[in-house]
Amino acid sequence: MRDMQSEPQAFDRVLSSMCTEPHPVARDAAERFLATNPGDPGTYPSVSALEEEAIATLGSIAGLEEPAGYIASGGTEANIQAVRIARDRAESQRPNVVMPESAHFSFQKAADILGVELRIVPTDDDFRADLEAVRASVDEATALVIGVAGTTEYGRVDPIPELGEIARSVDAMLHVDAAWGGFVLPFTDYDWNFDHAAVDTMAIDPHKMGQAAVPAGGLLARSEELLDELAVDTPYLESTSQATLTGTRSGAGVASAVAAMEELWPEGYKRQYVRSQNNAEWLADALEKRGYDVVDPTLPLVAADVPRSTFDALRAKGWRISRTATGELRVVCMPHVTREMLASFIGDLDRLEVRASVPVASDD
Amino acid sequence: MRDMQSEPQAFDRVLSSMCTEPHPVARDAAERFLATNPGDPGTYPSVSALEEEAIATLGSIAGLEEPAGYIASGGTEANIQAVRIARDRAESQRPNVVMPESAHFSFQKAADILGVELRIVPTDDDFRADLEAVRASVDEATALVIGVAGTTEYGRVDPIPELGEIARSVDAMLHVDAAWGGFVLPFTDYDWNFDHAAVDTMAIDPHKMGQAAVPAGGLLARSEELLDELAVDTPYLESTSQATLTGTRSGAGVASAVAAMEELWPEGYKRQYVRSQNNAEWLADALEKRGYDVVDPTLPLVAADVPRSTFDALRAKGWRISRTATGELRVVCMPHVTREMLASFIGDLDRLEVRASVPVASDD
Repeated sequence: MRDMQSEPQAFDRVLSSMCTEPHPVARDAAERFLATNPGDPGTYPSVSALEEEAIATLGSIAGLEEPAGYIASGGTEANIQAVRIARDRAESQRPNVVMPESAHFSFQKAADILGVELRIVPTDDDFRADLEAVRASVDEATALVIGVAGTTEYGRVDPIPELGEIARSVDAMLHVDAAWGGFVLPFTDYDWNFDHAAVDTMAIDPHKMGQAAVPAGGLLARSEELLDELAVDTPYLESTSQATLTGTRSGAGVASAVAAMEELWPEGYKRQYVRSQNNAEWLADALEKRGYDVVDPTLPLVAADVPRSTFDALRAKGWRISRTATGELRVVCMPHVTREMLASFIGDLDRLEVRASVPVASDD
Repeated sequence: MRDMQSEPQAFDRVLSSMCTEPHPVARDAAERFLATNPGDPGTYPSVSALEEEAIATLGSIAGLEEPAGYIASGGTEANIQAVRIARDRAESQRPNVVMPESAHFSFQKAADILGVELRIVPTDDDFRADLEAVRASVDEATALVIGVAGTTEYGRVDPIPELGEIARSVDAMLHVDAAWGGFVLPFTDYDWNFDHAAVDTMAIDPHKMGQAAVPAGGLLARSEELLDELAVDTPYLESTSQATLTGTRSGAGVASAVAAMEELWPEGYKRQYVRSQNNAEWLADALEKRGYDVVDPTLPLVAADVPRSTFDALRAKGWRISRTATGELRVVCMPHVTREMLASFIGDLDRLEVRASVPVASDD
């Protein structure tokens, strides 16, 4: 039990996570609802009512007046379920799903599980879905086109309205993965949501930029009819059917999502977006000044071409950082990431670089 | 936010849930690890180490010296993943899965998602899988045979060793759903685990009888090789692959599972089993004395043929109770269910029955 006595998680060096410290009101709500299960509404009605509130607010954020959906375990579940809806509505026996290479690996999981063909198309020079490539890949067996609103690697937003038109041209659905981006995009000029385009389903996670406690992902659908594709009968429960991928679910996640959104939507999230975006630009600037190639942070996420040896040395100093598939350093400016943390990170980077350029190593 | 100010969940009338109040040490651990994600071990290493501990203890409970597995969102995920492993190892293009009608509805979900044929066979007079029916249903396309160790409706344990032999006779795998039963069966004479039979995979949930906080399900596999069937590559994370159904996961669930098992395995769980079993027998006896048909509680779960109107009146009095598919009252004697609660429940039942037999209703 040694591990459990120590501080379980200090966030002061975490630059790699798309999750964050829950907001204090979200933590409090999670602790109070720890022993509830929204998967059994007949037994736990109060958390069930809270889930309806959560979906209503997620709808407001995502431009949907009468949203259908539920609080999922996370973006992976929401993405799997969106692919499942599309597969089950497809007329083809072997439906395909078209997505940019920038989409999250959970879609690989979804394709494997659901037995659909995944057609992965390249991105353009700015890391966004290449529309010509998407157009060339869809056909009458395409069940779903996927667009990402805030990619995991570079924080890019695909051209969602155009993807919607392409999807419609072959009677396919459009899913938007805004699992990370959904709580910052309302404060930008991007077209990304149900109101902007022919979006059918969306992943939008309160436990990422929404500052709720894990597990609080979000699946939204334009209509209940879409969600009904997922429903199975539920004997033994005093409710009639269940559309979720999991059975028992965390009431803590649901309650903390409601608490966070009630506290922060919209003004608190807006302030956080501005802080995070400024931090990202500050970091990008600091890295550029030091001669690294930096991908312009159009959302609060910075990627830079830092050598592997430097990356490893920073990890050895306790920094939790990660890399893109092509090996770039990747820093996600989540709410717990402060300017001071970034300054300290750059300080460590400078000390490493000085040492690297000095032939005799110091002995610290 | 009104709902969040009120007491979120009083367990004093909950008789329907297969979850329970987390043990105090489990609650404490959950609160401390609320902001961790074992789905990203490169960022959250301490909760990752705890997960290994959790799987080792689950292995001890389930008779497996070198267990493979992980802490899942719950029994549904573990069941889906077990079907997925079997499907992906099957040689048939259209594999089938054979299970008794007593198996949980999550297998319907699994079959729908994974595109396997589900062959549902009857149970015998004691609500256990009918072995002749299972034998008649398997064939060379059978990928998996499912046995339940503690059914949701009647708490029955299927003949697991015999199911293992049938599975082996057609080169199929054997999955045991001990999601609910796994933490009481070690104190009974049943043959149910990896040591007793040719079990390949198992669902065994700390957040049910294990007294951990939701979400803490368990998937166990006899070897890492089986688990590897589930693995997908994980770019952006400083780890190489991910075998879980979900991506981001709850560190609270993992930590609380470790804390509960460290505190309670084996003596605490044994004492709880004895208490729960005695309570079930007391309730069964009380219901029988009142003339109801009762299914003998061989594990701490009571089913009785109570009329629908009585059932509804008890729910109206605030009792959280549920019914079997055939309409019987179903009471699960979880750790939070005390003798006093059951006596109070029987008291309410008696008052209802008196009133029903008196022509003029009282005005209370």
